[in-house]
Amino acid sequence: MISKSQIKLITSLKQKKYRLLHNLFVVEGIKTIKELLKSNLELHILYTTESFNIDAKYEVLISEKDLKRISFLTTPNTALAVFKIPASKSVEENGIVVALDDVRDPGNLGTIIRLCDWFDITELVCSKATVDCYNPKVIQATMGSITRVNISYVDLTAYIEQSKQPVFGAFMEGENVYTKQLSQKGILVMGNEANGISKDIESLVSNKISIPRFGDLQATESLNVATATAILLSEFKRG
Amino acid sequence: MISKSQIKLITSLKQKKYRLLHNLFVVEGIKTIKELLKSNLELHILYTTESFNIDAKYEVLISEKDLKRISFLTTPNTALAVFKIPASKSVEENGIVVALDDVRDPGNLGTIIRLCDWFDITELVCSKATVDCYNPKVIQATMGSITRVNISYVDLTAYIEQSKQPVFGAFMEGENVYTKQLSQKGILVMGNEANGISKDIESLVSNKISIPRFGDLQATESLNVATATAILLSEFKRG
Repeated sequence: MISKSQIKLITSLKQKKYRLLHNLFVVEGIKTIKELLKSNLELHILYTTESFNIDAKYEVLISEKDLKRISFLTTPNTALAVFKIPASKSVEENGIVVALDDVRDPGNLGTIIRLCDWFDITELVCSKATVDCYNPKVIQATMGSITRVNISYVDLTAYIEQSKQPVFGAFMEGENVYTKQLSQKGILVMGNEANGISKDIESLVSNKISIPRFGDLQATESLNVATATAILLSEFKRG
Repeated sequence: MISKSQIKLITSLKQKKYRLLHNLFVVEGIKTIKELLKSNLELHILYTTESFNIDAKYEVLISEKDLKRISFLTTPNTALAVFKIPASKSVEENGIVVALDDVRDPGNLGTIIRLCDWFDITELVCSKATVDCYNPKVIQATMGSITRVNISYVDLTAYIEQSKQPVFGAFMEGENVYTKQLSQKGILVMGNEANGISKDIESLVSNKISIPRFGDLQATESLNVATATAILLSEFKRG
């Protein structure tokens, strides 16, 4: 059974302000929930139609009908978990730090988190206007990678200004990333979907880099920010 | 003004069977429509709240309210165009041909079309079970690139069997793409989101390649098919 107040709490977690207020976020999908249960994240409560055989204190068996009432998905899975948002850690500057300047699409952020995990990049720094990483659509797209990447929301200008690392940024007009000497340590800034990197941040970028376009120059105007991040991280890491 | 039968026709085009029946597909968003108008695609009809100054025979000025009735989007743009599906052309094997083995997500296909365009890959070959490229969500994600890539739906096994090109395929276990000698011509097969490349196609792949995973090997289980395509095309093209 699930009470009205529980339903109200869970559905409120769709919105960032309530996630911050309660310090909780929702995860759906057995595979992702199981990955998160193995991590350091603290489980608040798990609603499921089939037992996970975890501490009964944290597990509530519910009907499919009740799951449908709390799920954010059109076709719910068999479980919905609520985890506590972990305390933020300070950024450790060993290796490449990915910095996002107002990335707004949840799918893009989720994909970028998954890419960071793949390329062993543990630090992701986001401007305050970047989409919240505890947004359910972001969580869905990360496929569990969120537990292995330290994500910080900061004043991006102030963060870059105080850093002593070389600053790379993805621009339409920049040095060819395939021939440019890339460092093992540094900040890689990726910009907003529509507007790219903002003027303020641009002035702090010492190394403007580009992925060359092939063939007809009248063609595609830009790459999607997640695919551009994939190619650039591959270049930094391939050696 | 827009008639009931017109509304019925347009809304039917959400479904593949009606797109095939009428040989028409829908495009929304002024930017994409303008790109498509510049291409060889044949316009069937354009519904818009503001004139595009094109041949009046093809343009119908409608109210925002009427646009809302035909739009597939929650927040409609100011125009919706219906184009004719072009006749399919045969696959030209000069350079890299990207082959998709049952890619199902419209966003992934759209991103891959855009990547092909960026990397000057003009031939995209899709298995019959791959999502339809005239699906509105695919068109949305291609940002106009669809006019510059020749997309063919084929029996993928038969296509690869008859080709004389080297066949590369993306696998979790394969040769390191960063050190493997890649050719200028060949077929690059990318698999389904959940199951990868099917057994039948796998037996036809002469060169299994992988993007190495960095750091903790217990981490991310795979890359998204669109980001993996981005990295692999970058490797084929960077020289």
